[in-house]
Formats: sequence, structure tokens, C-alpha cells
Amino acid sequence: MRLLDAEARGRTGVRAVLADLDGSVPVVLGVSGGADSLALAACAAFVADRDRRPVRAVVVDHGLQAASTDVADRAADQVRGLGLPAEVVRVVVGSAGGPEGAARSARRAALLDAAGPEGVVLLAHTLDDQAETVLLGLGRGSGPRSLAGMAAVDGPWRRPFLGLRRADTEAVCTARDLRWWDDPHNRDPALRRVRVRHEVLPLLDDVLGGGVAEALARTADQLRDDTALLDTLAGEVADPADVATLAALPPALRSRVLRRLAHELGARPGELAASHLAALDRLVTDWRGQDRVELPGHVAVRRADGRLHGP
Amino acid sequence: MRLLDAEARGRTGVRAVLADLDGSVPVVLGVSGGADSLALAACAAFVADRDRRPVRAVVVDHGLQAASTDVADRAADQVRGLGLPAEVVRVVVGSAGGPEGAARSARRAALLDAAGPEGVVLLAHTLDDQAETVLLGLGRGSGPRSLAGMAAVDGPWRRPFLGLRRADTEAVCTARDLRWWDDPHNRDPALRRVRVRHEVLPLLDDVLGGGVAEALARTADQLRDDTALLDTLAGEVADPADVATLAALPPALRSRVLRRLAHELGARPGELAASHLAALDRLVTDWRGQDRVELPGHVAVRRADGRLHGP
Repeated sequence: MRLLDAEARGRTGVRAVLADLDGSVPVVLGVSGGADSLALAACAAFVADRDRRPVRAVVVDHGLQAASTDVADRAADQVRGLGLPAEVVRVVVGSAGGPEGAARSARRAALLDAAGPEGVVLLAHTLDDQAETVLLGLGRGSGPRSLAGMAAVDGPWRRPFLGLRRADTEAVCTARDLRWWDDPHNRDPALRRVRVRHEVLPLLDDVLGGGVAEALARTADQLRDDTALLDTLAGEVADPADVATLAALPPALRSRVLRRLAHELGARPGELAASHLAALDRLVTDWRGQDRVELPGHVAVRRADGRLHGP
Repeated sequence: MRLLDAEARGRTGVRAVLADLDGSVPVVLGVSGGADSLALAACAAFVADRDRRPVRAVVVDHGLQAASTDVADRAADQVRGLGLPAEVVRVVVGSAGGPEGAARSARRAALLDAAGPEGVVLLAHTLDDQAETVLLGLGRGSGPRSLAGMAAVDGPWRRPFLGLRRADTEAVCTARDLRWWDDPHNRDPALRRVRVRHEVLPLLDDVLGGGVAEALARTADQLRDDTALLDTLAGEVADPADVATLAALPPALRSRVLRRLAHELGARPGELAASHLAALDRLVTDWRGQDRVELPGHVAVRRADGRLHGP
């Protein structure tokens, strides 16, 4: 059988995200039964065999749908057919963060647990997932950070398929005779991501002349590089509460140092809005003796004696 | 008459974008006859009177539509009614860059000419225009630069209305009894910007739960700050052709220094794609004795003796 270009790129992706790791590091593959993760299993099985890496698949059964046990068992069987060990792990899904968020947390905890403290987890996110993530981040308006999407290497999480399209993963499955499962959630228009996928991206492609998913993914790559450097430079500022230091910083660094300071003073990270940071910035750059700035988490910041003070 | 909040914010915006200028600097206001520029005329007339600044309006008549002379004359009359001097300037529109691009070039040249070497030009772009610009840039995928949108202060160009919505400008016109002109081009679905305005942004607002234009504008603000600092740091790299220097740079700076080097070697700026920069990057970071990299403008770059060489 002629090797598909998509599968060759998938194998290269797997090798690239493992390149920094010793050959003995345990590699766990998160499998849902969808086309993306089955295609990843096919690529990872090849790499495990050739490079003699300890790779095994973990199929997480959330138990949220009637058929989920069948889906999980069938996925595990198919992965074993590719030559990889596979186990089904049943998780209990809590309720924090809504049904989607809770399932995601439970899944990630189970995968990290399977990988152990030395191991890594391969995730099958594609270029399409990346583009959707960028667009979802745009709506939050939380800046470059939310547009930077997902990294191929992010601690224990490894995403070898960020250069592949979703259609590539289906082509790999078809060529390998793998039968994937179409999660009905992926067609549920109540989910923002589903509407971004099926409505927003096709419209953008039509209006802008195509190539939008690739453009969004490229933008995310560049923003990750930019954000990494700017966060590093902001982290090197020794005294984030000193007004003279803050005032001398370029705005791109001052906003990041103020965010860091707000966290250090106990503000709740997820709730810090642009308006809070702008108010802190005015304490530094537009000081007219104004009152304290209230941050989420009952943190009041005031300026006195040339410094910003917390509660 | 009670002052509209929108008009108060417009006046503040006008003052803010002129704050760095001596009171004698000539200020030219670009007027199209649309709601945005008539509202700007109302706000600028107030500032001209109170702050004794020399402000005058220039209505550019492109002569592209049958009614354009009437539209221009009526706009000039209304601006005079607000107490500002106004003149109609007829321009000859070339063909370079397509009809929209050519009209824009002719308009900008006429406004700069009216402002003179010491003057500045007020433009009435709103937050909605900014959001549209960001989305159009996203589709190009040319990275943070294309997402950073328009700056409030950009050399002689001053944009006091980037914090106002288009609806705010209509409210100002209604309150001041100004009758604006709806350019039929603004409803032409052949134009990308029109479809972004009338199709993409409403859909994104629906899918993401509102506030998308504001989120895009906030993102643009932050990206402008980030890009300005990173461009400055990249500009400080003394020898952009030295491989050891390039290899030691963080990716965010290396990509910018390589772009600068490509320009210095004569590559055509508008045609430099991400793939060209990636190929240059591989000459530095993934050197396997590869052949020269061809850049747009018949510029071939090769690596020899630890340096990147042009033609």
C-alpha cells in the first residue's frame, strides 16, 4: 500500500513532538474513537515500533452517553489491531465548569495519571481545532494570549497533528480501514465550537477567499512565539510594584507586569479583565491621586510612596 | 440640549489625538459625508473653538459616482454650518491597486497635501472599522502585524473615533440634525469589508455571545503594543546576516530580523510569505547544506561562512 502523504506527515509530527525525550519516557496516547485520535494511533504505532518507544493508548470512557462503553471498547480493539497496547479507563465526570469543561478535566486527569510523572500525553488536535480555538479566543478579547492557541509541546501535552487537517485524519483512517466514531456532540449547534466549525469558518472562507484555517493557525504560531518572549521579558522585571520601574517600561511589558502583580496580590486570574489592567495602568501613567482599584477576588490596589500596594 | 455621551467621548478623542501637538499645528479633517465624518466634524468644531486650534475640513470628491459632487457640496455646507471652514477637493483617481485602493490613495494624498508638511489629518474610523480591519487581517494570516489594525496616532494620521461605535456617530448626527450620506458601496456584497460587516461580525456576535467588535478592537490595541516593542528589539540587532547572532535570538525576534534582512537584500515586502521566512529560518536553525532560498523580487539568499548572503 502506498503511504499517504497525510500519514507520513503525521508520523513526522509524532517524532517531532517526542524529539526532546529520552527513548524510555512513557508515551500515552489519548484516544476518543474519533478519526483524529485513531489516525494518531496509526502514526504513533509506527513510531513506537521503529523507534522502540513505550507507547500505549488510553481510551477514556466518560460514561456520559448510552453507547460510550461500546464506542470505547471498539476504539481500544482497533488500536490493539494497530499493534499498540490499549486500555479503557472509566472516569467519573464532576460538574465544575459545565458538562464540557468537567468531561475535559476528568479526561485530562486520567491521561496524566496514566502517563505518570515522567510520561507525556499525545493529543490529536488538528489544524482545524487550532483555528477554532483562535476564533473562540477572539471573542473573549483577552488579547494575544487567547489567540495563541495550542502549542505542539506544552509540558506533558504533545500535539503532533497541529499541521494536519481534520480531513487528513479521516483519509488516514480510511486508508487503514479504521472505523471512527462521529460524536453527536460535534453536530450540536448549542456548542460554540460546533457553530464556529460549521458556520463561522465556512463563511469566513467564502468571504475572504479561502485558506482561513491555515491563516489562523499561522497567526497562532507567531503569537505564541511573541507571547513567550514578552512574558519572559516581563518576568525579568525585578520589582513589579515600583511605580518608577513600571512607568519606564514599554506598554507591552507594563501590561504584563501589572497582570503579574495583580496575581501576586491575590486577584483571581480568570476574572482579570482589560478594564482592570487599564485602571492599574492609570495608577502608574495617569496619576491624579485617584482612589484604589478594585480587582476580582476582593483585592484593592492603591498607590502610595511611589509603590502599588495590595490589601 | 443635553450633550450626548457619544459626542462627549468624541470630543475627548479629538483632544487626545491632538494632545502632543502645538496649538498652531494645522488640523485637516477628512470628510466623506458619511455619519462618521460628519460626527467627527461636530466634535472637531467644538475643540477648534474651545482650544483655538486651526481646524478645517476637506471633502474629497472622487468623481466616481454620478451624485458625488452633490454629496460633497452638501457635506461641505453642513460642516460650514458647524462653524468649520470646508473646501471640496476634486481628485483624479488612478487605477493602481484596484478601484478601492486607487480611490483611497488619491484621497490620502489630497488630505496630506491639504495638511501640509507640519499638519495632521483627522480620520473618522470607528471601533467597527477597527474590528473589520482585524478580521480582514486574520484572513491574510500574515500574523500579529496584520491583526494590529489602525493606531489612533500614526504619524500625520489621527483617529479620534476608534473608541466609538458606528451607531454612536449616527446618534451624534441625529442629535445635531446632520444628514449623512449612505454610500451604496457600503452595501455592495462584492466588497470583502462589506461582507465582514454585514455577515461575519453579526454571526460571530451570535455564536460567541456578543461583544465581538469590542473584543477585536481590544486585541488590536494589545497587539500594536506588542508589535511595536518586538519590532524595536529586532531593530536593535546589529548584524542581521550573522548566523550565530540569528541562531541565538528567540524565535519572535529571529523572524522579524529575517524579515528585515530580506527587505535589505531587496525582496519585495508585500510578497514575502510565511513560507519564505520559514525557509530562511531553516538556513539558520536547521542547516543541512541546503540550496539557496528564493525570495520574491528575484532575490536568492544562501548561507556561507556563517553568514546569509544575498544576490
